[in-house]
Amino acid sequence: MLKGRTEAGLLTEEMIGQKVKLFGWVQTRRDHGGVIFVDLRDRSGVVQVVFNPDMANEGFLSAERLRSEYVVELEGLVRQRPEGSENPSMTTGGIEVVVGEFAILNRAKTPAFYIQDNLEVDETVRLKYRYLDLRRPELQKVLMVKHKVMQIMRSFLDQNGFLEIETPILGRSTPEGARDYLVPSRVNQGCFYGLPQSPQIYKQLLMVAGVEKYFQIARCFRDEDLRADRQPEFTQLDMEMSFIEIEDIIPLMEQLIAKIFLEVTGKEIPLPLPRLSYAEAMERYGSDKPDTRFGLELVDVAQVVRESGFKVFADTVAKGGRVMAVCAKGCSGMPRRELDDLTKFVSQYGAKGLAYIVLAEEGMKSPIIKFFTEEEIQRIIAAVGGETGDIIFFCADKEDIVFHALGNLRIELAKRLRLIPGDAVNCLWVTEFPLLEYDEEEKRFAAKHHQFTAPMNEDRELLDTDPLNVRSKAYDMVLNGMELGGGSIRIHQRDIQEKIFKLIGLSEEEAHEKFGYLLDAFEYGTPPHGGLAFGLDRLIMILTGRDNIRDVIAFPKTQSASCLMMQAPSAVSGQQLKELHIKTESGVKNGQNKTQNN
Amino acid sequence: MLKGRTEAGLLTEEMIGQKVKLFGWVQTRRDHGGVIFVDLRDRSGVVQVVFNPDMANEGFLSAERLRSEYVVELEGLVRQRPEGSENPSMTTGGIEVVVGEFAILNRAKTPAFYIQDNLEVDETVRLKYRYLDLRRPELQKVLMVKHKVMQIMRSFLDQNGFLEIETPILGRSTPEGARDYLVPSRVNQGCFYGLPQSPQIYKQLLMVAGVEKYFQIARCFRDEDLRADRQPEFTQLDMEMSFIEIEDIIPLMEQLIAKIFLEVTGKEIPLPLPRLSYAEAMERYGSDKPDTRFGLELVDVAQVVRESGFKVFADTVAKGGRVMAVCAKGCSGMPRRELDDLTKFVSQYGAKGLAYIVLAEEGMKSPIIKFFTEEEIQRIIAAVGGETGDIIFFCADKEDIVFHALGNLRIELAKRLRLIPGDAVNCLWVTEFPLLEYDEEEKRFAAKHHQFTAPMNEDRELLDTDPLNVRSKAYDMVLNGMELGGGSIRIHQRDIQEKIFKLIGLSEEEAHEKFGYLLDAFEYGTPPHGGLAFGLDRLIMILTGRDNIRDVIAFPKTQSASCLMMQAPSAVSGQQLKELHIKTESGVKNGQNKTQNN
Repeated sequence: MLKGRTEAGLLTEEMIGQKVKLFGWVQTRRDHGGVIFVDLRDRSGVVQVVFNPDMANEGFLSAERLRSEYVVELEGLVRQRPEGSENPSMTTGGIEVVVGEFAILNRAKTPAFYIQDNLEVDETVRLKYRYLDLRRPELQKVLMVKHKVMQIMRSFLDQNGFLEIETPILGRSTPEGARDYLVPSRVNQGCFYGLPQSPQIYKQLLMVAGVEKYFQIARCFRDEDLRADRQPEFTQLDMEMSFIEIEDIIPLMEQLIAKIFLEVTGKEIPLPLPRLSYAEAMERYGSDKPDTRFGLELVDVAQVVRESGFKVFADTVAKGGRVMAVCAKGCSGMPRRELDDLTKFVSQYGAKGLAYIVLAEEGMKSPIIKFFTEEEIQRIIAAVGGETGDIIFFCADKEDIVFHALGNLRIELAKRLRLIPGDAVNCLWVTEFPLLEYDEEEKRFAAKHHQFTAPMNEDRELLDTDPLNVRSKAYDMVLNGMELGGGSIRIHQRDIQEKIFKLIGLSEEEAHEKFGYLLDAFEYGTPPHGGLAFGLDRLIMILTGRDNIRDVIAFPKTQSASCLMMQAPSAVSGQQLKELHIKTESGVKNGQNKTQNN
Repeated sequence: MLKGRTEAGLLTEEMIGQKVKLFGWVQTRRDHGGVIFVDLRDRSGVVQVVFNPDMANEGFLSAERLRSEYVVELEGLVRQRPEGSENPSMTTGGIEVVVGEFAILNRAKTPAFYIQDNLEVDETVRLKYRYLDLRRPELQKVLMVKHKVMQIMRSFLDQNGFLEIETPILGRSTPEGARDYLVPSRVNQGCFYGLPQSPQIYKQLLMVAGVEKYFQIARCFRDEDLRADRQPEFTQLDMEMSFIEIEDIIPLMEQLIAKIFLEVTGKEIPLPLPRLSYAEAMERYGSDKPDTRFGLELVDVAQVVRESGFKVFADTVAKGGRVMAVCAKGCSGMPRRELDDLTKFVSQYGAKGLAYIVLAEEGMKSPIIKFFTEEEIQRIIAAVGGETGDIIFFCADKEDIVFHALGNLRIELAKRLRLIPGDAVNCLWVTEFPLLEYDEEEKRFAAKHHQFTAPMNEDRELLDTDPLNVRSKAYDMVLNGMELGGGSIRIHQRDIQEKIFKLIGLSEEEAHEKFGYLLDAFEYGTPPHGGLAFGLDRLIMILTGRDNIRDVIAFPKTQSASCLMMQAPSAVSGQQLKELHIKTESGVKNGQNKTQNN
């Protein structure tokens, strides 16, 4: 019985002389001079407990049977550790508990790995024994931080008048962008539910329903090939408000994020956050999620090179492409091998080469310097702010390739040059995104954020004449170069929504078939509205300093979307499939209790 | 922009003379003496706004175009209503807002039904236009209560050291009892995920993981045929604690429920709650979820009738059956037709008849009285506490039929006799459930609660000799005759869990195949643990006085598990099915944008 329990990690020197009751796991057991010492671990931490040979009730004999991960209940007296035996690396290292009564509540086999932090164990083993992995203090801490963040989010939004409302998991499949997970219907033969990729349409309908302020910590599902920071199901803090413009939602959301950082990490984020337009973010950082913890900004050198003798640059400018440069401070000693390496690096992003000028002490070194006049070179150096000791890197290509290549190059350089301050929290908004982008593969426009995002009022006329130059009322919050969340003011009028559907290539029939209920809803008094979603898992990763999304999810899936602990997904019985009116493709054995292994 | 907004329903007479900014929907518009009156509705309530013909900027002309459900933004002056025009039925009925500036933010077609409470509209129409239905104040109130209850739950559990932890929706199919919803895997061909019927196993594994105190407001899924109080997906407050016994969890949980009732309804629930053992609940009320807001208790009359001349009763007792009675006070005037009706009523529950004795003023009336001696009759009357004016009803049969028939009869009588106080909140625990019951159909034992429930320590030996008489450490909270929640102390030792699996007919292979990971986990230091789950939707129904579960879910499904608004489930493309390696059964057209209709 928990009554009267003290948690091990909360014992302090003030409790010396008190009798305490503890529950927990044996972390380690040591016999020393006829006395048994056990480090007892519970959720709160660890304390040393001592079993003396003169214990009553054969207690000492039991204590001799203790092994790692045995579960025990005990009562004992808190005392100061004998001088010289203190352990300053433990928060309870000045005290110990001398055991009076105790009982073994459960035994344990030797686990596949030690229950301790910084474990060097293959992740598949850790995932198979996830219930052991989660016992490790660093993962317990992640669970606690996640709980705390969810509590802060909810109470903040509650205080600001938001209602938490659950939306369905069994929804309608409307695949756009990512693949839907499907659920066959037993009652409606041949039909399927789709698991939501986000509650986007539901939250907009809640605004139509007059809820005015909605939020949900919502589970979302995407059947995509997984990367290190993706899971088949993930969680977002999802919000929507009526009667708002951008200036209503941005201050509120940055207050929330600042509050979370302050309460969890103690770090203050100065508000209001800086904002960059999409255009400026791309021009200066080559990215719509710029990491501004370091400089290495992109510089346009087209004006200087357009009439130069270097044909590659001049032609690029003439054809409407871009020629931009990044100046890497103090890198002139970079070996040739590393320069070649960087050329290979940018080629991943489509760049055909990486020109450079090394501003070495002993003079400039560069394969391209010969094509420029001395004056042109000085103008380039002045434009990028180059000094002796720097290297200037160039990329000349179509705009998106230049942004992509140099945007990634500056991050790569910052890592190599260790320019990123370890504990900086750099948070900003990017706004005025293009409403549309051109999908080369599908030969049509596609929504840059999503198809429900409203165009900026001043650009609305361009929808008919120059759609690619229409800016939207979208906004992303970027933290240390990662997209933490994003949202937009939505379209709330049927005619504009229909126009967007048409622009992105949905026929009138398709639009009606897929989104008819939403278009209908817009005709019954839909208020202006907008919202935002934060990726919870990514936020927790940042707050706890983890770089693997599986570390911040209690029961994660592998990159092949499997749970190694429960062996899911698994084969199911023929009876189950029959009731759902589906068959697996021939060649697949089923109903045979087959389970997959990875 | 929301800045400076006042909510309509929050306007008070103290604000007379102030300028306010309002956003909302036109509830009604009336022209009266050249002036336009609009009832403006937002989430908080309704206020009357007045448009005078002398408004600036053609405002009045715009106001003439207003129709129901138009969305408007306005600024105006709060003033006292002219004497005689107050509306005491509105909370803002003493004031009105004289409009200065205003704008129509969106128009509205005439909705399919009025946005008002106590609507007499076919539910299918309401569900199709759910975004309009939810605008009605009574459903808005439900959403607000649900939000508030979830906030109370979370902060209470947070304060008590519980961590909110998310468990997977894409789990493993382990059909037990109810049918699982399945999700075909794209990556693992021929395999399926199962949606969780509850997070039971995950929360037990979290206890193995040393989390000690877990909760989650969790979505659960059951693919069952739906009744009025069932939905394919539903929500439960799910909890689990380590190192506890029943006496730890029961007081905590009743504090939580009392807090919710107090904060939401203002009603005090006296604590501690009464407890009934399962055996006593069945004996006295014929139900394991007894409604004790009224008497009409069952009385065993076997001792009196066992040697009587009424062979039906005497034989039942002789064969080990039960003969029990319920005394309905003051019902002796009940017409014969109604008595026949009640006979039919109990026949639903398997009773072959319903004998009775009417203790009328003018003497006893009964078809069975002739079989008893005068002394036997007096002993029966004494046993049930009968008086002139009452009717005594009898049922003689196997025990479960007697309980079932008379347990339901007493509820039916209480309704007909209006014995149930409208605003009573009657909350109690039922404990000491049988661990197992006998499944006649499957000819095997089945778990009464579920297969992870621990037997009572004092009955553990009976597992080998008399399994049906083993009581469990299960507990249900019952509110006004409904099961509000339930839980148990769980098994935490492999050998006992294996014994239970065996008793309920799982072979060693099946147990390993389905629950091997759990049995394994039990061997690595599993603490004693237990928990509970409350049905959130049912709790909200009780708190808001709704009798339809669809009223307390924002986007519910019909009894055929469909969403009438979005037309889900729906047909999907052949491409989607191909990627999932499944086919629908022949005869079902697919990939044709077919949608089902109900």
